[in-house]
Amino acid sequence: MRQVAIVGVGMTKIGKSDKNVVELLAEAALKAMDDAGVGEGFDEVFVGNMAAGEFEGMSGLGDALVSMLSLEPTPAIRIENMTASGASAIHAGWLSIASGKSSLVLVAGGEKMTSATTEKTADIVASFTHPVERDQGVTLPALVAMAARTYLERYNASRESLAYVAVKNHHNGSLNPLAQFQRRITVEEVLSSPVICDPLRLYDFCPISDGAAALVLAPLEDAGRYTDKPVKITGIGAATDTHAIQERDDITRMDAVRIAGEKAYRMSGRKPSDVHVAELHDMATVLEIMIAEELGFFKRGSGWREIERGAADLGGELPINTSGGLKARGHPLGGTGVAQVVELVMQLQGRCGERQAGEPRIGLACNLAGFANAAAVTIVERGW
Amino acid sequence: MRQVAIVGVGMTKIGKSDKNVVELLAEAALKAMDDAGVGEGFDEVFVGNMAAGEFEGMSGLGDALVSMLSLEPTPAIRIENMTASGASAIHAGWLSIASGKSSLVLVAGGEKMTSATTEKTADIVASFTHPVERDQGVTLPALVAMAARTYLERYNASRESLAYVAVKNHHNGSLNPLAQFQRRITVEEVLSSPVICDPLRLYDFCPISDGAAALVLAPLEDAGRYTDKPVKITGIGAATDTHAIQERDDITRMDAVRIAGEKAYRMSGRKPSDVHVAELHDMATVLEIMIAEELGFFKRGSGWREIERGAADLGGELPINTSGGLKARGHPLGGTGVAQVVELVMQLQGRCGERQAGEPRIGLACNLAGFANAAAVTIVERGW
Repeated sequence: MRQVAIVGVGMTKIGKSDKNVVELLAEAALKAMDDAGVGEGFDEVFVGNMAAGEFEGMSGLGDALVSMLSLEPTPAIRIENMTASGASAIHAGWLSIASGKSSLVLVAGGEKMTSATTEKTADIVASFTHPVERDQGVTLPALVAMAARTYLERYNASRESLAYVAVKNHHNGSLNPLAQFQRRITVEEVLSSPVICDPLRLYDFCPISDGAAALVLAPLEDAGRYTDKPVKITGIGAATDTHAIQERDDITRMDAVRIAGEKAYRMSGRKPSDVHVAELHDMATVLEIMIAEELGFFKRGSGWREIERGAADLGGELPINTSGGLKARGHPLGGTGVAQVVELVMQLQGRCGERQAGEPRIGLACNLAGFANAAAVTIVERGW
Repeated sequence: MRQVAIVGVGMTKIGKSDKNVVELLAEAALKAMDDAGVGEGFDEVFVGNMAAGEFEGMSGLGDALVSMLSLEPTPAIRIENMTASGASAIHAGWLSIASGKSSLVLVAGGEKMTSATTEKTADIVASFTHPVERDQGVTLPALVAMAARTYLERYNASRESLAYVAVKNHHNGSLNPLAQFQRRITVEEVLSSPVICDPLRLYDFCPISDGAAALVLAPLEDAGRYTDKPVKITGIGAATDTHAIQERDDITRMDAVRIAGEKAYRMSGRKPSDVHVAELHDMATVLEIMIAEELGFFKRGSGWREIERGAADLGGELPINTSGGLKARGHPLGGTGVAQVVELVMQLQGRCGERQAGEPRIGLACNLAGFANAAAVTIVERGW
């Protein structure tokens, strides 16, 4: 298979938008196309989206986006893998180029969530849950809270360490003009925000978001046509876990993350200590810690301490969620996996302004589906 | 790229089911796995589904199916391309094997429609429509009726010729134990059924269906492990058309079908006259005729006459919709594209019993998305 490069990136402002999901996807796509200096000539288009049908009564986003961009008759499909739809769309685009099937691919991921009521949004987010567990009232925040409680107890971790994830990511978000939240917060604010599912509070969770992000992919050998700083996709990995959470041995473990990570490391020939910058799926604060441990960035049970002491800060050994993460950049479900890679590309290219985390050459993104029902990991590296 | 073979097929009974979509997908998958004599070892799973979230409030079908089949941690994603989701899932599975990424792939497509009200189903089916046209009240049956009226007038075609498509496909369905409709009908019955959108009547349209179909894919070089009669996928092609129908030059033309067909012919090195058996997306009777013309099986404007005289009968020059088609086998949206290829495989393998159409060696399936908003064509050939 041939090497694949990201030659253009684009993202909308994340937050509350008046646009529908197709308009959001198109805005991000046009930015990515502009970044690559290309207006047409795509062989395939991949859309990452979780639930436009449920949120807005819209299907066929592939055709709708292609048509809005006047790219007909380019084939287009939508990839859905719950909240990891964005990363899975990137992986599909990667294969299209890597295999030689395509020479130019557009990947766009996005979601429009704010048009639905909170109640409906909760239903949609719960739609990946096993029917038996859903009937018993299990929700994603509740599952994460159970994991957090177990993690805190088992590893004698401080509640403040979870809060610090939010503080760090809001700090990073305040330096990202496209992030949903621009305001810095304190540990005290997190710990005094309303309880959602004990021990987790409002500021432990990501917001509800509208937004989209996009990539232009090409063979590395052609990348010079589009950019001086192509970013190679060197590792991809995906995995699933049990649909019913009760079938898992340990609620603090995320086998799908570990296995997806192992696959991506193997393919890229990299190991955790090679990674310079990471975007991890911090839908709740504790998940950033748990994912970082599953991926081998920190020893199990020590991630909370490392992050609390600053290891994942912009100036730390491994800056995590420099974009602000799901917590502060925002979490437009199907857009998140693409937004993560957009941030990594911009970090590798040195385009992140005040939130630039040194001169990273290797980045890793982990996009989670549901409660680690699936995970998709992507490793990117400087291609110049 | 290496050659890809279908080494196992399976399908549920199509009709009204008590099962949910995941259970339907699992039933079809287990049949296909049994057909291939394989119980595990998949590298990837692809699910074709249009709207489980809207119909049943279920997402994450990839993980749900993998988990029901105890195939974790196999990666799984859902492919959505409106009513062509099934064919697009096959194409994704094909690339996974063809590229060398995977050595064994499961593709399952399905839909559970009957749990929704008719009103809700109409909304879901309309969800691919351009918002402006939807606001004006355009529906898919209305678009098809406008195309039918234009076609009939332009080519002096007989209304009876459309009815004959339904009669033929019900005849074929009566010979298919898994078809939704087992009853033969007459031209008179079609022409006296209630008007839906003039000139089309109830019996011109496919039913609302629950059901699923599945394929096991492997490299052709490994196919002998699973079957004596592997069926090669030799051509795939996909294309999109304008989202808004008003932007098209001619409502009787389906550019997406023509272009998808051209791609599949080019890849396979075949031409229309090489095809021995075809499954075409007869969501309404007139579409079988229009699609057959776009694919080059009949001269433009002559398809109605050819089909009416029996060219597409089981004993005709090119048997079309031997399964009963969407019209009589049924149309479980995301399952249809897979069910089409299941039928072709069984025809090529000579397993169709009373509906066996001679000894075909080459088959073609055309799966339509929306009102030809997109199309996906697959050509399969005997691999033994």
